[in-house]
Amino acid sequence: MIILGIDPGIAIVGFGVIEKKGSQLKPVQYGSIETKAGLRTEERLKQVYEAMQHILEKYSPNVMAIEKLFFNKNVTTAFTVGQARGVMLLAAEQANVPVAEYTPLQVKQAVVGYGKAEKRQVQEMVRMLLNLQQAPKPDDVADALAIAICHGHSAQIEGLLKLKGKDV
Amino acid sequence: MIILGIDPGIAIVGFGVIEKKGSQLKPVQYGSIETKAGLRTEERLKQVYEAMQHILEKYSPNVMAIEKLFFNKNVTTAFTVGQARGVMLLAAEQANVPVAEYTPLQVKQAVVGYGKAEKRQVQEMVRMLLNLQQAPKPDDVADALAIAICHGHSAQIEGLLKLKGKDV
Repeated sequence: MIILGIDPGIAIVGFGVIEKKGSQLKPVQYGSIETKAGLRTEERLKQVYEAMQHILEKYSPNVMAIEKLFFNKNVTTAFTVGQARGVMLLAAEQANVPVAEYTPLQVKQAVVGYGKAEKRQVQEMVRMLLNLQQAPKPDDVADALAIAICHGHSAQIEGLLKLKGKDV
Repeated sequence: MIILGIDPGIAIVGFGVIEKKGSQLKPVQYGSIETKAGLRTEERLKQVYEAMQHILEKYSPNVMAIEKLFFNKNVTTAFTVGQARGVMLLAAEQANVPVAEYTPLQVKQAVVGYGKAEKRQVQEMVRMLLNLQQAPKPDDVADALAIAICHGHSAQIEGLLKLKGKDV
């Protein structure tokens, strides 16, 4: 299973592609999409959208895992991130890639085992879990990989469940 | 000049196309894009995006006027509207249609002449200014037409200015 993790934004979008084989997680590619502050918002959104289309086509992920709405940030940030997130969800839908959403708390718990973990701890755990020589930077890239890892773990847990009833 | 006014949203997007000839404003078409609450967000965003593409192609507006970020609403609303707004800005950018943004205050001042005007007053003024038999409903449609009218008035005022200096 190929998992694409996304840390959404407009100035910088972190992305991380990992492959999950059994319980093994392997990094495939990771990096960022960056747009210049001087450009019009519409132009930046188009750049993010086109870069996302490229990534979705190139790596054909089975799923896109993305950070969920967080309530603790301010309205302007929520609005700006929301606009960028909108074009990313659109790109995923058009590529027929299902979307999974995780809160920062879920991601930290899955990766570090502790919901209030610091950025540095997340980076270090991402490095260890993916056998990287150096912790991925900037934070957005580490966060994107962390979200992908979080999905990998969640999918694994769901795979262990032998469900007998019907989900409501 | 053809002006497309947009009142952004995810459940209901109001749109209003008006034609401006000299100081005359004429309604061309208006209505709403509606998406069902039961659908996945990604699917709803795709529906809004495709409907926007259709409107932009059909009416070839010279400009898309859209409501600007408003700070008084809550974070969840800002985020949800932001996502929808993102795909609308993308559609405009891809269609090479420039975007103009106005705050609700600017719109009410332009249409009713009073920034704290009520919904009902905006609807009634839109009806009068566009010579409609009935006030357009729901509010989202009236708001979209009001935004288009606001742009029409602003463009008119700018047209009256004989500028000698260079804009910074």
